[in-house]
Amino acid sequence: GNEGQQRLTDPTAHPQLTLTLQGVEQIKTSLGQVPLFDQTLSDVIAEVDAELANGIEVPVPKDLAGGYTHERHKSNFFIMQKAGTLFQITGDDKYAVYLRDMLLAYAELWPTIGKHPAERSYARGKLFWQCLNDANWLVYTSQGYDCIYDWLDVPTREKLNKELFRPYAEYVSVENPQFFNRIHNHSTWGNAAVGMIGLVMDDEELINWSLYGLDIEVPGDIVKDNDGGDIKLEGQKEAGFLAQIDHSFSPDGYYTEGPYYQRYAMYPFLIFAEGLANKKPELKILDYRDGLLIKAINTLINQTNSAGEFFPINDSQKGMSLASRELVSAVSIAYYYGGNDPGLLSIVEDQGRVPLNNAGLASAKAVAEGKAKKYQYKSMELADGAAGDEGAIGILRADDLTLVMKYAKHGMGHGHFDRLGFLLYDETGEVIQDYGAARWVNVEHKDGGGYLKENRSWAKETVAHNTLVVDKDSHFDGNVKKADQTAGMPYYFLSGDDVQIVSAKEQNAYPGIDLQRTMAVVRIEELESPLVIDLFSVQAPEGSRYDLPLYYVGEFMSSNQKFQTNNVLSPMGKESGYQHLWAEAQTTLEGDVFSMTWFNKKKFYTVTSVVELGDEMILTRIGANDPNFNLRRDPGLIHRRTGGNTVFASLYEIHGSYDYASERPLNSFTSVATMKILHQSEAYVVVQFQLKTGERYQFACSLLNDSKTAKHTVEDANGQWQWQGIYNLKKNI
Amino acid sequence: GNEGQQRLTDPTAHPQLTLTLQGVEQIKTSLGQVPLFDQTLSDVIAEVDAELANGIEVPVPKDLAGGYTHERHKSNFFIMQKAGTLFQITGDDKYAVYLRDMLLAYAELWPTIGKHPAERSYARGKLFWQCLNDANWLVYTSQGYDCIYDWLDVPTREKLNKELFRPYAEYVSVENPQFFNRIHNHSTWGNAAVGMIGLVMDDEELINWSLYGLDIEVPGDIVKDNDGGDIKLEGQKEAGFLAQIDHSFSPDGYYTEGPYYQRYAMYPFLIFAEGLANKKPELKILDYRDGLLIKAINTLINQTNSAGEFFPINDSQKGMSLASRELVSAVSIAYYYGGNDPGLLSIVEDQGRVPLNNAGLASAKAVAEGKAKKYQYKSMELADGAAGDEGAIGILRADDLTLVMKYAKHGMGHGHFDRLGFLLYDETGEVIQDYGAARWVNVEHKDGGGYLKENRSWAKETVAHNTLVVDKDSHFDGNVKKADQTAGMPYYFLSGDDVQIVSAKEQNAYPGIDLQRTMAVVRIEELESPLVIDLFSVQAPEGSRYDLPLYYVGEFMSSNQKFQTNNVLSPMGKESGYQHLWAEAQTTLEGDVFSMTWFNKKKFYTVTSVVELGDEMILTRIGANDPNFNLRRDPGLIHRRTGGNTVFASLYEIHGSYDYASERPLNSFTSVATMKILHQSEAYVVVQFQLKTGERYQFACSLLNDSKTAKHTVEDANGQWQWQGIYNLKKNI
Ligand SMILES: [Ca+2]
Ligand SMILES: [Ca+2]
Ligand SMILES: [Ca+2]
Ligand SMILES: [Mg+2]
Ligand SMILES: [Mg+2]
Ligand SMILES: [Mg+2]
Ligand SMILES: [Mg+2]
Repeated sequence: GNEGQQRLTDPTAHPQLTLTLQGVEQIKTSLGQVPLFDQTLSDVIAEVDAELANGIEVPVPKDLAGGYTHERHKSNFFIMQKAGTLFQITGDDKYAVYLRDMLLAYAELWPTIGKHPAERSYARGKLFWQCLNDANWLVYTSQGYDCIYDWLDVPTREKLNKELFRPYAEYVSVENPQFFNRIHNHSTWGNAAVGMIGLVMDDEELINWSLYGLDIEVPGDIVKDNDGGDIKLEGQKEAGFLAQIDHSFSPDGYYTEGPYYQRYAMYPFLIFAEGLANKKPELKILDYRDGLLIKAINTLINQTNSAGEFFPINDSQKGMSLASRELVSAVSIAYYYGGNDPGLLSIVEDQGRVPLNNAGLASAKAVAEGKAKKYQYKSMELADGAAGDEGAIGILRADDLTLVMKYAKHGMGHGHFDRLGFLLYDETGEVIQDYGAARWVNVEHKDGGGYLKENRSWAKETVAHNTLVVDKDSHFDGNVKKADQTAGMPYYFLSGDDVQIVSAKEQNAYPGIDLQRTMAVVRIEELESPLVIDLFSVQAPEGSRYDLPLYYVGEFMSSNQKFQTNNVLSPMGKESGYQHLWAEAQTTLEGDVFSMTWFNKKKFYTVTSVVELGDEMILTRIGANDPNFNLRRDPGLIHRRTGGNTVFASLYEIHGSYDYASERPLNSFTSVATMKILHQSEAYVVVQFQLKTGERYQFACSLLNDSKTAKHTVEDANGQWQWQGIYNLKKNI
Repeated sequence: GNEGQQRLTDPTAHPQLTLTLQGVEQIKTSLGQVPLFDQTLSDVIAEVDAELANGIEVPVPKDLAGGYTHERHKSNFFIMQKAGTLFQITGDDKYAVYLRDMLLAYAELWPTIGKHPAERSYARGKLFWQCLNDANWLVYTSQGYDCIYDWLDVPTREKLNKELFRPYAEYVSVENPQFFNRIHNHSTWGNAAVGMIGLVMDDEELINWSLYGLDIEVPGDIVKDNDGGDIKLEGQKEAGFLAQIDHSFSPDGYYTEGPYYQRYAMYPFLIFAEGLANKKPELKILDYRDGLLIKAINTLINQTNSAGEFFPINDSQKGMSLASRELVSAVSIAYYYGGNDPGLLSIVEDQGRVPLNNAGLASAKAVAEGKAKKYQYKSMELADGAAGDEGAIGILRADDLTLVMKYAKHGMGHGHFDRLGFLLYDETGEVIQDYGAARWVNVEHKDGGGYLKENRSWAKETVAHNTLVVDKDSHFDGNVKKADQTAGMPYYFLSGDDVQIVSAKEQNAYPGIDLQRTMAVVRIEELESPLVIDLFSVQAPEGSRYDLPLYYVGEFMSSNQKFQTNNVLSPMGKESGYQHLWAEAQTTLEGDVFSMTWFNKKKFYTVTSVVELGDEMILTRIGANDPNFNLRRDPGLIHRRTGGNTVFASLYEIHGSYDYASERPLNSFTSVATMKILHQSEAYVVVQFQLKTGERYQFACSLLNDSKTAKHTVEDANGQWQWQGIYNLKKNI
């Protein structure tokens, strides 16, 4: 009616964060006509109604993550957000009553509790063991509160504002500046939490804190967080939400901690941005920094494998994926605010649910209208660093193959010592894996769900990665501070059709040693799948001991070399990750080439490597010194060499198939007959490989001059090679 | 036309095996109207056309399984069967021409080759290394030949009959009676092969050999097959196809070698039976032995987990399933000839393809008409032995849980020493696994795809199974002959709703020792999933050393006891399978109860076991003494005890959930607080367990008297218990 019309144009009327009055009207008129939205709504109604039936539980905080009080408060904030939304969409008072009563219970509890009894956090929360979780609570609860704000009677609203929300917002900001005033995903949550409740309560002071940070010095005795990260970054001058956007992402939308944390961090970025877009459109937050927030969603989507799972670089629990609630929210936001890319809709379809707001309605409607297209994953180099000049990750995609090489920044407290490491996927999943983090997030059995000590002693160490270990020690001697000071150096990136290349250098991981890795994904007409060429060149003093691990995923099939297995296993070392490895078997290599085939799920894979005199291969197994069985017993292959300047040259081939219902193997043997290095120097590598069918291929690369037009002539006792440009791939010369 | 009508009623007209003239007419008029059939047809056309384009390859036999000549001849017989079928359905001559020319190539080859050069088989074939594969060839090729028989000109047909098929049939029968005249799946293939080509050629001699066996003595020097199985069974008086039906299956349709081999064996049983039903209806082969062949298909279907994979008991490659070509054929046969059970149609839907014959058309039509219902898997005891009195396997199903206990015959050459062993599944797959066979079927990398030596040294041994090892040695001292002489003893089987029980005895595996295992699947109202109670009672001399392994599947989460991990691993023994086990950790147990929780895929699992003073638990890992990396690095838990008469009492609980996209664990801890044995004797076991919520349950079982009405009174220092019937489950007494 008239009153409704008036409310629709009243700028103080709620909801105004992720739902708006106009949006709610549209949703109401669309009910029953948009399957994905209707299905999500009915799932959420079922979930919330079960909680209503269960009754309100607001326990005195006591437990760590995984424990009852932690999980209950966490569940409460999700449900409050949902109950508010359902009140708006269905108009059923029961949701508002439930939400109000729970908020009143929190208002009773809040003044009676001090800091959470668990003391392990650098910024202890009140409801939870760390402020981070308290901020999570406020980000979600603000959205619920927004939905019943106008429905509440004034005394109740004022009581909640004064006795719960303002003190709560102060707790996670001015009372904990070491949490709020960082450039870090923790602070993004803090900023968004304070800003969102500020928007709901029209509290300009909170909104200003959230956008621009606090003018408060962090107490001098708090310098590190629990993960060893610095509270104050070198040269940090500003804080708050806008500074987070400036500093958290590269111009390519890459987040230095990697996609697992980007996924986590994106939620507060986007949800607060939505609120700002609605309540403070004059800020043009979604246009800020060239629309970086929307771009960052696509950057995140591009850091996934065929199952939609994020590349597990840095601290990252494997399996986190586009199916997560954060991405369900983000993908619809990107669709709605980011130009209606129909490729995003295929992801929405796979997610099978949408956020219950305007963005979710729009994407669900578009799906129902059949607008979805397959998302186009492309090869891309994603630069790291706020200015985009601090390393990168390179992603090469060809058919079902995805290769990821990392030469980015370290990633602060969550970084791994994995410069020039790589991952390889095909449509079945992992082919060459990164271990990920040693952690079972939220699983109380496993040290309360936090990082396990094996995360430091194993998962972060260089030997846990598919990259070179020199003299048994990790990059940067395993020192985060040193690692944070420099980044990998992108040398060359070529995305294309038949030949794609990523090449990068690392000159700081080991003093006085230069590393360069060049990986090419090439289509070879005789092979079923694109072939990976891996050239790892090292300039180092004679007598260096190199270990180059390859964490293949699957079951060993056969090798052209005979391994000696060990009848007694002992750990391979005392530190730097070696203490967690058993050497199951080794071989002192004979001849010029090593090859090994393994099988996983339904395919065969072969690595072929050039052998130098004295090289060894070691078949390893993770699991030594693991008193709590925290580590997976995964296999690995270490190529060991002692020498000076050298090149490790390998091919990775995906071939054939086998399934257990037909028991019929196809193409189970490698097609590669031999491989050799024709030339190696600081400036050039030239390799050749021959297929069993007789075809010979030669790949040459210039390592110092990345000009696309330079002419190269290389000559040594073995022959002479000439080409133009950075690389050259030739057949049957 | 008239000629067509005449042919339709001509009993000598072909095809007459799995396709009939009438059937072909029906298929032709249904084309384009039955999606599953049409889809299969178009897939098969694409497959066969690709082979036609490739041209005919009939190489001189040379390779073992996995090698080129083996795989080529194998591929040829599948394609010939399909080409014949396509000729009948499409009427396109190109298929007949291709098939004829390939047969002529075989007719050229056959007289020029002797036995296959590989000498490892007890019955060497000519095209393949073993007669078994030659018989496979003939079973499939006969079907193709049947389809073009009437199309061929008479001289060609006579040439093929005389120069290829009759000599071929003689080779796999009279020239290799040690292959043809056994009661064994090898011979079933042989019988069917000879019988089917006999039907096609109207060769009554061959048909008689196939049905009734040969009147030929096996040469005295051939007494064992390659797997150590006896060529001639004790007391064996007959051979041939009817004898195979008599002796291969129990009255319940159980096949003593287990479902993996039953699946393999069923194809020749059923395909030859179809041919006989069409060509010699007077035999009433499908009614033979109360319609046993159709019953056996349902028995096979019931031996699968939630993914349709067969229970991997005995020699069995895991993953073989209802998706196999043999079951695609069998399920439609069961539907068409076995009373149109709509439950079978849901399996046909999952298979996604049908055989291109009358049966396939019928099931595809029924699916298209929406007649499919969910197949009803039920708890059942499947008796072993031709008379059904030689042990059994017990299958208990409740909700998504499936428990299998094995107390059947040994299973001859393919048997494992696993009396009273069990497997446990839920909807995610394996919870407690059997290792299966150590073999990569057809994968040439792995010893040509045959059984690996670790199959004998590990997979068959008792310690590789979830059953009791006494004094470190396998059942029957690992002797197949001894094991074959007796079977497990069914004691009690109850399928029902809230309480289901399987109990069996084993009195021969160890001289002078009586074993009895009683497993109950009970619904406990406080628990999410049915609970498994496991009571393994032993009557044995004092000082016996017991090892009870539990091959849990997944990642160790936590235990109520502290394990000591080993920094140096050495094999746990020298023989009987122990030489392949590493002890990763052990604990000398404290208190009265052991519990351990693991996680797999998306659920938590807890074992709770009653502890006796001096008991140990050992966390094991498979993989020692494995020079060719043939074994999976799977974990196990061994409960070790030294004593005399005793009971091992445990609970297996399926609980909670966790997924990597939500990172939210639910109910991750066991609900069981304690467990104790209240009474144990030769005649009774009484156990009690208490939940963390306080409820107490008591389970009592009579071990000697299985009368359903007998009254039991048990009294000892701990108390007195009275009940009626075999078992008693009480709450809160
Ligand atoms: Ca460059
Ligand atoms: Ca065999
Ligand atoms: Ca009985
Ligand atoms: Mg890593
Ligand atoms: Mg170090
Ligand atoms: Mg077994
Ligand atoms: Mg033995």
